[in-house]
Amino acid sequence: MKRRLRLGMVGGGRGAFIGAVHRMAARLDDRYELVAGAFSSNPQRSHDSGADFLLKEDRCYGSIDEMVRAESARSDRVHVVAIVTPNHLHHAPAAALLQAGFHVICDKPLTTTIAEAEDLVAAADRAKRVLAVTYNYSGYPIVRHARQMIAADELGELRVVQVEYAQEWLSAPLEGEGQKQALWRTDPEKAGVAGVVGDIGTHAFHLAEFVTGLRISQIAADLSTCVPGRRLDDNAQMLLRFANGARGALWTSQVAPGNENALRLRIYGEKGGFEWSQEAPNHLRFTRRGEAPQLIARGHAGGGPAGAAATRIPAGHPEGYIEAFAQVYCDIADLIDASDEGITPGASALLAPTVEDGVRGVRFIHTAVESSRRNAAWMTI
Amino acid sequence: MKRRLRLGMVGGGRGAFIGAVHRMAARLDDRYELVAGAFSSNPQRSHDSGADFLLKEDRCYGSIDEMVRAESARSDRVHVVAIVTPNHLHHAPAAALLQAGFHVICDKPLTTTIAEAEDLVAAADRAKRVLAVTYNYSGYPIVRHARQMIAADELGELRVVQVEYAQEWLSAPLEGEGQKQALWRTDPEKAGVAGVVGDIGTHAFHLAEFVTGLRISQIAADLSTCVPGRRLDDNAQMLLRFANGARGALWTSQVAPGNENALRLRIYGEKGGFEWSQEAPNHLRFTRRGEAPQLIARGHAGGGPAGAAATRIPAGHPEGYIEAFAQVYCDIADLIDASDEGITPGASALLAPTVEDGVRGVRFIHTAVESSRRNAAWMTI
Amino acid sequence: MKRRLRLGMVGGGRGAFIGAVHRMAARLDDRYELVAGAFSSNPQRSHDSGADFLLKEDRCYGSIDEMVRAESARSDRVHVVAIVTPNHLHHAPAAALLQAGFHVICDKPLTTTIAEAEDLVAAADRAKRVLAVTYNYSGYPIVRHARQMIAADELGELRVVQVEYAQEWLSAPLEGEGQKQALWRTDPEKAGVAGVVGDIGTHAFHLAEFVTGLRISQIAADLSTCVPGRRLDDNAQMLLRFANGARGALWTSQVAPGNENALRLRIYGEKGGFEWSQEAPNHLRFTRRGEAPQLIARGHAGGGPAGAAATRIPAGHPEGYIEAFAQVYCDIADLIDASDEGITPGASALLAPTVEDGVRGVRFIHTAVESSRRNAAWMTI
Amino acid sequence: MKRRLRLGMVGGGRGAFIGAVHRMAARLDDRYELVAGAFSSNPQRSHDSGADFLLKEDRCYGSIDEMVRAESARSDRVHVVAIVTPNHLHHAPAAALLQAGFHVICDKPLTTTIAEAEDLVAAADRAKRVLAVTYNYSGYPIVRHARQMIAADELGELRVVQVEYAQEWLSAPLEGEGQKQALWRTDPEKAGVAGVVGDIGTHAFHLAEFVTGLRISQIAADLSTCVPGRRLDDNAQMLLRFANGARGALWTSQVAPGNENALRLRIYGEKGGFEWSQEAPNHLRFTRRGEAPQLIARGHAGGGPAGAAATRIPAGHPEGYIEAFAQVYCDIADLIDASDEGITPGASALLAPTVEDGVRGVRFIHTAVESSRRNAAWMTI
Repeated sequence: MKRRLRLGMVGGGRGAFIGAVHRMAARLDDRYELVAGAFSSNPQRSHDSGADFLLKEDRCYGSIDEMVRAESARSDRVHVVAIVTPNHLHHAPAAALLQAGFHVICDKPLTTTIAEAEDLVAAADRAKRVLAVTYNYSGYPIVRHARQMIAADELGELRVVQVEYAQEWLSAPLEGEGQKQALWRTDPEKAGVAGVVGDIGTHAFHLAEFVTGLRISQIAADLSTCVPGRRLDDNAQMLLRFANGARGALWTSQVAPGNENALRLRIYGEKGGFEWSQEAPNHLRFTRRGEAPQLIARGHAGGGPAGAAATRIPAGHPEGYIEAFAQVYCDIADLIDASDEGITPGASALLAPTVEDGVRGVRFIHTAVESSRRNAAWMTI
Repeated sequence: MKRRLRLGMVGGGRGAFIGAVHRMAARLDDRYELVAGAFSSNPQRSHDSGADFLLKEDRCYGSIDEMVRAESARSDRVHVVAIVTPNHLHHAPAAALLQAGFHVICDKPLTTTIAEAEDLVAAADRAKRVLAVTYNYSGYPIVRHARQMIAADELGELRVVQVEYAQEWLSAPLEGEGQKQALWRTDPEKAGVAGVVGDIGTHAFHLAEFVTGLRISQIAADLSTCVPGRRLDDNAQMLLRFANGARGALWTSQVAPGNENALRLRIYGEKGGFEWSQEAPNHLRFTRRGEAPQLIARGHAGGGPAGAAATRIPAGHPEGYIEAFAQVYCDIADLIDASDEGITPGASALLAPTVEDGVRGVRFIHTAVESSRRNAAWMTI
Repeated sequence: MKRRLRLGMVGGGRGAFIGAVHRMAARLDDRYELVAGAFSSNPQRSHDSGADFLLKEDRCYGSIDEMVRAESARSDRVHVVAIVTPNHLHHAPAAALLQAGFHVICDKPLTTTIAEAEDLVAAADRAKRVLAVTYNYSGYPIVRHARQMIAADELGELRVVQVEYAQEWLSAPLEGEGQKQALWRTDPEKAGVAGVVGDIGTHAFHLAEFVTGLRISQIAADLSTCVPGRRLDDNAQMLLRFANGARGALWTSQVAPGNENALRLRIYGEKGGFEWSQEAPNHLRFTRRGEAPQLIARGHAGGGPAGAAATRIPAGHPEGYIEAFAQVYCDIADLIDASDEGITPGASALLAPTVEDGVRGVRFIHTAVESSRRNAAWMTI
Repeated sequence: MKRRLRLGMVGGGRGAFIGAVHRMAARLDDRYELVAGAFSSNPQRSHDSGADFLLKEDRCYGSIDEMVRAESARSDRVHVVAIVTPNHLHHAPAAALLQAGFHVICDKPLTTTIAEAEDLVAAADRAKRVLAVTYNYSGYPIVRHARQMIAADELGELRVVQVEYAQEWLSAPLEGEGQKQALWRTDPEKAGVAGVVGDIGTHAFHLAEFVTGLRISQIAADLSTCVPGRRLDDNAQMLLRFANGARGALWTSQVAPGNENALRLRIYGEKGGFEWSQEAPNHLRFTRRGEAPQLIARGHAGGGPAGAAATRIPAGHPEGYIEAFAQVYCDIADLIDASDEGITPGASALLAPTVEDGVRGVRFIHTAVESSRRNAAWMTI
């Protein structure tokens, strides 16, 4: 059943960052078509945004409730709705949409509390609908390839994992200047219990588990707030212990000048090691113990089937952030198709990050905050 | 007048490389919608391809003629048609489409002869329609920024330009193994008078002129064929002289193992220098004479308004080949909108590569071949 | 008083690694001349080694005692002796040499116990002789420049320090194969209480304090042994807290395939950030908050006076490990000259790592081991 | 016969750049001891310089003649003399020293005319003494390894060679500001017929032939002078044809801001390709056709015996410019030892660049100038 999924959106009106990314990601591979949205809690703003996107006026809604009601009544109703609001506004719309029988794609972190996250697991289960969470960095082809190489034991028993995600942009007290992105991210009412740990640390955590195929069983976290007056953490160092005994560290920061969006993963095993950086995402540095390092390129020699399945163009023609995000959208489309057809999802669909990943991410955030409160005591996730 | 252009396509059926790129580029920024196509000269194949793209069956055509005729008769006819066939099949469809009043987007090189190229200039002029040529590398935001910096005299009088475009993939005699992409590119009947010079050298030439804002007035070219039995050049070195007296060199090769798609531009002036590589397209290395080199990032400090106008997401979130290609599609959409509305194109539209660039590219190819025949004699383009 | 210091050596006979480095470092800038040595506890081997170095036979000794006695009796006695034996053989010769009135240069770590380290402080003090410890990475010009920039407050208040030192070579159980360098480094009798933490972690610790000018007040360390059967740690992750409140992490490993000698330092402050890697030691990546990163080159624009004072050749002509080691030797020569002349050491001499740095390094090692025994509890150094 | 060669020097007094490099290179591996010199044509300056180097006063000479006469009369006379004066002052001292029976090490280019260069060939032959020319970049271990890999046919038949050597420092008219290094290099009376081509282009030429093992049979050169008023070329582009039919290009410039000392060599053959940059000299990027690129490190896996023979410390401990220069000095020492002992030089000695390389370099310079005068006509070297 070849089809284009009809997509709705919650949030992501004019001027929003991540909403535009979701729309491009949905569009790139032609698996979705945006047809409806509650783009803002301000009805006029929602309609204006919809007009920007060339939507029909009657499918631009002023609230979730209105959207749920109206869409439910249509024969050409949306198949799936993407939620791209700030963290504290994820749970309610997701619950409502699932209950009404829509599939949901939610930005990370899934919710601001563990209870809400678990509630959504139950809601998705009851509704038998897909609830996917956009851990978009898992969509990079070379990340998929790294994961596959580890699954194929090419690194041997894993020993050490160093993961980090650093940015510069909150080095200055932007929230004091009224910068919108900074305001909600540093506000516990909107962001939840954590700042940088919830905003980007959760990506680093997910990526480390995704690629290694291992659970991080324990963490000892030291969160800090470097910018005076800030209400949430903007820097964190953590010690990691993995289920197989491997050790590691996680560093995340939004006060590191010179780091634009530096998500970086290094994994070392008995037989070899990997290094990958999101800012140069098309290559993996792979070293077999005792040999010269190799630069494995997406789509090129050694790029592997998992990588090839997630890429569009040959090596040397860089793919980037949008393509990786689009890949996650493709995998979610596969998952939705399988759900609607009542069949078992294929291999690609199984790579899509789901509500389970979302819950785990929320647990990670809360565990880190609690460990830090206890002066970096070891805690089990 | 906000609208989504209805797009048709010639060529680019199942299994084609560049057709898929054009489709993603058209889709990414939501300025186009693919609605029709003559995807193959084999009608069945054309229909199957159209089905892949979820097109209506009656808009999948078995020939250009059929498409021109049928689309012309529709009120919802395509606004513009992208031609993504091998080089020798550019001229005829472009001429027919222009004559029938359609705008045209053509892959490079525009044609295989200068006469054909000039014929299309006249045809576009007569039809008062846009004929754009996808010199896609000019769409990178940081390339735009470099161009703007030079226009603002930040490098001072330009002195030296080193440009190169190297690949590995034709190091082996793939045409002898029946590889489809290699077959037509090494066949003078289909590729024209040149091999690598026409296939990728023309991109390097365009980029050097685009960024510097200078004409390359003379070249001395030494073309060679490294793979025994190959019928066209697969490597070329050229000396360059620019209109302002600057000197340079151009190297292009498809027999350089280790080079995936290594388009690289270096420009040096009295006051500073640039280095840019397409495989790491989000950064420009800029050095003011006597100062430490800076890494200017797309979308970040120093990325400039021209770069900002061509980008979608913040620095550190890599954009790539598809985004740059999409940017050219956006600029062409602006050009078409201006044409249809009878207004003067805006700044962005003026960056779109047009038939004039296409003609210049064809002249470059023929001049290089002729210079090489004369043992690398200097020739004026 | 321009002179060339007469140098003796303990250890470093045929086949040794670090002994040869010390000799080149001493020679490069013509401040020392090797004239004597007890290169091995095997007298024949010591003499053969001395012959390799073109020394006079009567100055090649079979033991420290012999050397101390014989050299003390000469009018052209050595000014200073370099100790380049395994860790457990540092204290005794250092104590004997100091007592006999010789200056001493000792490889790191200074000793295997804190008591021995403190004993050497007292011994040097009593003897009024220089006891320097070769924390050689502090000799890189660009490291000096980074230190000076921080001292000049160019980064503002420091917030985050990430330091790491990773190698691959002990990924395999080389000690089981009888590899000499591996054998003593993994043997608690010879290496002391720690493996990788003592062998290279101590360099990372020293470098972080040297460049920031801050004390690391507390650490929480998690040491692990990845290679089965190994008797000491080969990997360690640590959380760091600095005296000013800055946070950080230290990672050191000898089981990280793909890392040759990857000492890397990243420092972030309110106003900017640094990144430096020992494997590309001639450049510092420096970012002022909100500006494009700069690549500051040793000896070039922005390389600064402290860097210039420690370099020999212009930018673009790479200096490396030997030159940095030689710089430390130069600084030690300045210190010795000042000591012998009874004058106050100059600025360069004050950069030489001394017995105080050596003691601090030994304390770090023992604190890390103890913290790890307590399950990564915070401990004060 | 293990010995330390007694070294004299012509030029290289206080404040000189390359003289200091020669002294460090001679010293590093303990194969030479500087004992005498005519460091300046000003006797006082020569003596002061000698005092800086801790030489005996009676071996600091005010002229070559004086040095030749006095040293010839000594039983402990110098074995070899290094000439580090500007280009026009190479021939006369070299001829005089050879005639007096001294070995000679001469900086490049050997002379300013072909006739003088050939005269030195004859002089060295008559005197049966070594005349070596310091093409120092051939001393890098990884360059040696690349050469050996090509000799072992690991790249297959060579097809393309791109070599370049670019600097920034003459972008400004420094000679007009009286800068000493710029003054003589831009003065035809002192530098000879060429500027950048003779100063650094000759290194690029030598390196290309050294590594490939091929002769460059023909060049077509376009020399330019970018800085107004400059009397010699400061930029040059050349097309290259190699004896085996391979093609290439050479670019050399001293007006390229952002290039410190960017000597870069890329070689492509049927089976693979190389890329090497002098500013990151410890690694070679090597790609077997169709495979992922490898980063071969000096002293590490795949670094090869030729590389190992030219290195001092393990991979990850960077060696640089001085070490490479020192390697050439070591090889010359082997050559001198073989000459004095009347035995056949070993493999390492045969890598030392000799008067033959010197002559070829001078021919290259003159051929380039003449080709450029003929509007970049092809000329045979």
